[in-house]
Amino acid sequence: MPHGSDILLDLFVIFVAARVGAILARVLRLPEVVGEIAAGCVIGPSLLGWMAPSEPIEVLAEIGVVLLLFSVGLETRIDEMKRVGRSAFQVGVLGVAFPFVLGTLWAHGAGFGWDKSLFVAAAFVATSAGITARVLQELGVLQRQESRVILGAAVIDDILAMLLLGIVTALQAGEAIDVGQLALIVGEAVGFVLAIGLLGTRIARASTRRALPFSVGSPLSLALALCLGLAFLSTKFGLAAIIGAFLAGMLASETPQREELEHQTQPLLALMTPFFFVLTGAKIELAQLADTNTLLALATITAIALVSKLAGGFLGALALGRRSATIVGVGMMPRGEVGVVIASLGLAAGVFSARTYALIVAMSLLTSVITPPLLSFLFAREIKAKNDDLEQSG
Amino acid sequence: MPHGSDILLDLFVIFVAARVGAILARVLRLPEVVGEIAAGCVIGPSLLGWMAPSEPIEVLAEIGVVLLLFSVGLETRIDEMKRVGRSAFQVGVLGVAFPFVLGTLWAHGAGFGWDKSLFVAAAFVATSAGITARVLQELGVLQRQESRVILGAAVIDDILAMLLLGIVTALQAGEAIDVGQLALIVGEAVGFVLAIGLLGTRIARASTRRALPFSVGSPLSLALALCLGLAFLSTKFGLAAIIGAFLAGMLASETPQREELEHQTQPLLALMTPFFFVLTGAKIELAQLADTNTLLALATITAIALVSKLAGGFLGALALGRRSATIVGVGMMPRGEVGVVIASLGLAAGVFSARTYALIVAMSLLTSVITPPLLSFLFAREIKAKNDDLEQSG
Repeated sequence: MPHGSDILLDLFVIFVAARVGAILARVLRLPEVVGEIAAGCVIGPSLLGWMAPSEPIEVLAEIGVVLLLFSVGLETRIDEMKRVGRSAFQVGVLGVAFPFVLGTLWAHGAGFGWDKSLFVAAAFVATSAGITARVLQELGVLQRQESRVILGAAVIDDILAMLLLGIVTALQAGEAIDVGQLALIVGEAVGFVLAIGLLGTRIARASTRRALPFSVGSPLSLALALCLGLAFLSTKFGLAAIIGAFLAGMLASETPQREELEHQTQPLLALMTPFFFVLTGAKIELAQLADTNTLLALATITAIALVSKLAGGFLGALALGRRSATIVGVGMMPRGEVGVVIASLGLAAGVFSARTYALIVAMSLLTSVITPPLLSFLFAREIKAKNDDLEQSG
Repeated sequence: MPHGSDILLDLFVIFVAARVGAILARVLRLPEVVGEIAAGCVIGPSLLGWMAPSEPIEVLAEIGVVLLLFSVGLETRIDEMKRVGRSAFQVGVLGVAFPFVLGTLWAHGAGFGWDKSLFVAAAFVATSAGITARVLQELGVLQRQESRVILGAAVIDDILAMLLLGIVTALQAGEAIDVGQLALIVGEAVGFVLAIGLLGTRIARASTRRALPFSVGSPLSLALALCLGLAFLSTKFGLAAIIGAFLAGMLASETPQREELEHQTQPLLALMTPFFFVLTGAKIELAQLADTNTLLALATITAIALVSKLAGGFLGALALGRRSATIVGVGMMPRGEVGVVIASLGLAAGVFSARTYALIVAMSLLTSVITPPLLSFLFAREIKAKNDDLEQSG
């Protein structure tokens, strides 16, 4: 029967392009995710135009990144997260403060008024955990201390970014800042994360000891329901969906079905995550960046975005040693789709022009392409250095 | 960060409703799929209105049923399909002829002109393989002869339905029927199925013996690419996407990775198929059927649809014995989303009214709800009868 399903062609093209990109990346000794993003840029509207972002593909991408962070949560134990709590908190706070201050100064220098500069700077702030999480998973280093710190800091980062966005939006609208209201919003978000991270984990442990909820129906279906439910809830608390998905994964990792779930999540990632990374790449608008002035401006803001985040992350994690602190700083660098979302808000609110929008989007995506090879290189060095130390001491 | 993602709420509600429906169905000793369709009807616009069909959900549903038929193909060996070829062919042909003739007569009796009657009858014809495939998989009887015949007949059925739709559309537009053109279209579709079913299988066997294509990259990714690619291609040949997906599954089942793939497909089905069945249920418009006359008309056309398909399937498969022939006939009964698609075409072409459209849609969906319990009951009896025979003879 004829079904008019050219969406199937889109899905096929995206999926195959992602695989081809991943394989080429592997040949070039780059992380696969770089190949997938590059594939998106090539088949997207900028170059070949074989696919264009559409609502269904956005939804598939969202499901993909939600599942990705769920699976990362599955590999993360809450107790180990607590152990790195202080470092993660410092990285989260400094990793927001540095880019915000430097971003404000750059924007003011570029001619924006102070209140608009604060809005522009907000787009410099938020880390996109998806890219880094994927690289850490690909490298098989999710169990390392640096990875824990990065993931914990990403949660803090998301809460602070929400706070900042609330403040700069109010300033932009010329409203007085209602400190009580902001405190309430942040309090709710923190409460949500803590309630799930601490209380929820206890419930998960206790109830599975009595073989309760996870025995009704298949564990996978329950875990997926939990993942979708918490992903949605976290958007209701002003946080990214992936934060809720990550927490859901951590809850599920406290149940006896953890290994089974880890196994079953792999095919889901294989099907769904390509849509996220290809879509990320497809959003890079090369034509917007075709003149020298724009390229210079892009180089400047990308450098500011990278260095400020690296510095904040490095200082926050210095207690782990310089090598590890560098890894943490680099791991926090990608802005990815989060920067794109804030840039869209700024464009919609009339805070900045189409050119500034294109610049911020390009900067966000560029940080996402630059980070994975750096991270992969640093981890290789770090692992080698550890081995050398062991040999010397042994 | 704030992402405006109320689609996540939709996904959560659909997914949880499907699980609750499936569990309730199991308690009532009905196939789970009935519970999922019923859940869709309850949360859909007809009753609670917690979700409404939207483009992203349609796409998720399409991916779900494509993956379902892929996994059914994985459990189907081409050699076993060939063995039941003659029965499948007869079931396909008679299962199209009976509903088409009876549907035409009913429509003419109901006051349609002959050419419009033929169009209405086309909506009686096509079997939706998704519902039956899911029930057969749920019952664990995909390896049985009756299941092979049903699946083979579904392919024939789809080709003939395409042919019929081509003819009635031409008649409707007052065009002369271009026999050569129609023969070409059908020839292409048959060629596509044969090329993949026979030639493709040989290539799959030969190349995996030399460990070629399925060793580049993960087998799952390659299989998924094949599945999406053939699903798309089959729509280009005028066939349903699920036919291509089913063929892709049969190809993959000839590779040494078959068991691994069967395993990895399960989580994909758990995530994606609920969207298909819940959406099927959500499309049932109860309000359209609220008066006695409409209900009577619905009862009539549903009875015609069920009996004509049952008779055609039964006669076509009579060589397997009466019990098995009954199972085959019942297995061909669901019209599901295929009937809905043809009804939409008829509505768009102005061939029939909104009421006739609602009737045909309701009939299509009703056949999908009625079939699963019948099939489950018949297979239980059949299995019991076999066992009794064995005991008597033993």
